[in-house]
Amino acid sequence: MAKDFYGDLRLGILGGGQLGRMLIQEAINFNVNIHVLDPDPNAPCKKLCNQFEVGSLSDFDTVYNFGKDLDMITIEIEKVNVDALEKLEDEGVLVYPQSRVIRLIQDKGLQKQFFKQNDIPTSAFQFISNRDGLANCQIALPYIQKLRKDGYDGKGVKKISSSADYADAFDAPSIVEEMVDFEKEIAVIVARNDRGDMATFPMVEMEFNPQANLVEFLISPSTYSFDIQSKAESIALKIANDLQIVGVLAVEMFLTKDGDILVNELAPRPHNSGHQTIEGNFTSQFGQHLRAIFNLPLGNTESRANAIMVNLLGEEGYEGLAEYDGIEEALSIEGVYVHLYGKKYTKPFRKMGHVCIINQDRALAIENARKVQELIKVIA
Amino acid sequence: MAKDFYGDLRLGILGGGQLGRMLIQEAINFNVNIHVLDPDPNAPCKKLCNQFEVGSLSDFDTVYNFGKDLDMITIEIEKVNVDALEKLEDEGVLVYPQSRVIRLIQDKGLQKQFFKQNDIPTSAFQFISNRDGLANCQIALPYIQKLRKDGYDGKGVKKISSSADYADAFDAPSIVEEMVDFEKEIAVIVARNDRGDMATFPMVEMEFNPQANLVEFLISPSTYSFDIQSKAESIALKIANDLQIVGVLAVEMFLTKDGDILVNELAPRPHNSGHQTIEGNFTSQFGQHLRAIFNLPLGNTESRANAIMVNLLGEEGYEGLAEYDGIEEALSIEGVYVHLYGKKYTKPFRKMGHVCIINQDRALAIENARKVQELIKVIA
Repeated sequence: MAKDFYGDLRLGILGGGQLGRMLIQEAINFNVNIHVLDPDPNAPCKKLCNQFEVGSLSDFDTVYNFGKDLDMITIEIEKVNVDALEKLEDEGVLVYPQSRVIRLIQDKGLQKQFFKQNDIPTSAFQFISNRDGLANCQIALPYIQKLRKDGYDGKGVKKISSSADYADAFDAPSIVEEMVDFEKEIAVIVARNDRGDMATFPMVEMEFNPQANLVEFLISPSTYSFDIQSKAESIALKIANDLQIVGVLAVEMFLTKDGDILVNELAPRPHNSGHQTIEGNFTSQFGQHLRAIFNLPLGNTESRANAIMVNLLGEEGYEGLAEYDGIEEALSIEGVYVHLYGKKYTKPFRKMGHVCIINQDRALAIENARKVQELIKVIA
Repeated sequence: MAKDFYGDLRLGILGGGQLGRMLIQEAINFNVNIHVLDPDPNAPCKKLCNQFEVGSLSDFDTVYNFGKDLDMITIEIEKVNVDALEKLEDEGVLVYPQSRVIRLIQDKGLQKQFFKQNDIPTSAFQFISNRDGLANCQIALPYIQKLRKDGYDGKGVKKISSSADYADAFDAPSIVEEMVDFEKEIAVIVARNDRGDMATFPMVEMEFNPQANLVEFLISPSTYSFDIQSKAESIALKIANDLQIVGVLAVEMFLTKDGDILVNELAPRPHNSGHQTIEGNFTSQFGQHLRAIFNLPLGNTESRANAIMVNLLGEEGYEGLAEYDGIEEALSIEGVYVHLYGKKYTKPFRKMGHVCIINQDRALAIENARKVQELIKVIA
């Protein structure tokens, strides 16, 4: 690295949301000077950094000007201006993950091609350039239509069950994906530093809220067989190595009913499926991301306990100044860690915080997580 | 509480050093608005809070004006203007710990009297108003002279071995304390919330740097007998209850060679002897302090692993812009957590950071801590 990571290193984060916030909580331990760019003047990171700048993450000039006096840039969201990052890289700013990795992952179509080219198992797919392409699609109905770009948090994904759904489908470049009859959604977070050290966190199991299409509940570590877990971790390691990424990479996968694993999609940054590592593992995904981008030895990723992560989503039917019901009761349960994200306003399914529940007894951890889920409501 | 602890609560911290910094790292999870007052314009908390104000902690007007629009005030250092806090309390600001507790603890003479009045075991002592009092002292030489006020971090304490030392002694109101032939310095951190719930962290053992008279090395949990540990915890609980304190209280004690426990002194706030709780215990002392002052259920204080805390003190012979040697090597050891305090300048024995080393195997934890101590040097 050009500079010591403590003292005078200026690290820029593109995005000032909860991921940036938790990254800052960890970066404080390294004495790093943090600069944050976010379009929202009330972003969760606003008051927690050396410099907070309001501006568009998609605008070339804004991102370039934000980054040109920094030593290193990382992201907490993929939807950023990659051309500006490329120029900054050319001028000697360290950009981790690298601009080419972000460019590839921004486009779910390029991701799919990358999987195919690198023999990474993934569901069958084909590209269409707009809604009209659906009628001639070779994939059997029902299938999934996914926008190539700008989908996030469950947005940009539609199930097409029959031709009656065509009219409501996305009219933009998309992937049509075979519907996977999966047993479970799983994820592995892998980290890689610039010298090529790699480490995976234990595989986790996700429970989705079908209505919001958001992770609602996450269990770490998984109790699937050693074979399945090894396979999932090997896939994550292969992808990190094929990409030569620097930083953490979340690999979301489907475990099919036949015991196969298919890669769903990638996120080149700390991810919702790794929040439980803060209390549940020896190293958190945020600490690991910092170790990776600072080219330090990677930390021990082992679990310290069974950890359940519950997302606190804005309750349906409430919109406005956020209020949090039930936190006091939830904190009376052993092993409960509340993380609020500092968002002023709630709306249905907005990610307002998360809770991690740990216990040496897995069943008790899950039981307590269900209690927490019942207790805490984000209303307005 | 007057307001919800999330969202709109304005919490003031008197002092913006490392304790405030670690308190903020935890307070981020509660959405609290943090205001910090510190005389140093480059204090470690400067860029991590909603509002940072430079000003004297001892000045009535400064403290009063800082606090008058806040909902709650806490401290990270005892040397603050208590009259201002008392007035703020009268006007409805919540001050935790309470001003009367801070006033008592500010004066080590009042502390000693409090111990005596409440049958809390402590070493024999007498008060002197200046150096001249030493000659007529009833305590047998050698003894300890301690300034009643303003001593901290080992400053304000002198060993008087013979009358030859009188000339160098403090010429101010002091306590003369019997020298305790102790086997070990130990500490228990206890927390109490406003509804009277109390909880102790497991007793820890301290190793001092005799030159700097600072904690250099701390082992948690202790392996002394159950009887000794229970006795130490009971004393801490009794003190917290006698004081009716709200917040955490560090109780530093001597374990004598006869197995007796004598209370040395108190700190009504998170304390150096509790830093290892961040990684070593289910709840950290910072999280517990917040739970206590927010009148929430107290967290589980149990140890999650053997945890050794090593202070990173400025190396002798170096003064100036801080540099940190050996961090990379230290991070390659398993279970090593580095916390740098964001202090720009180092000087001999200045507390620049700490490292926590955890391991299920106690001997290995200690071995790794010694390695870390060898590896990391804070120089200039």
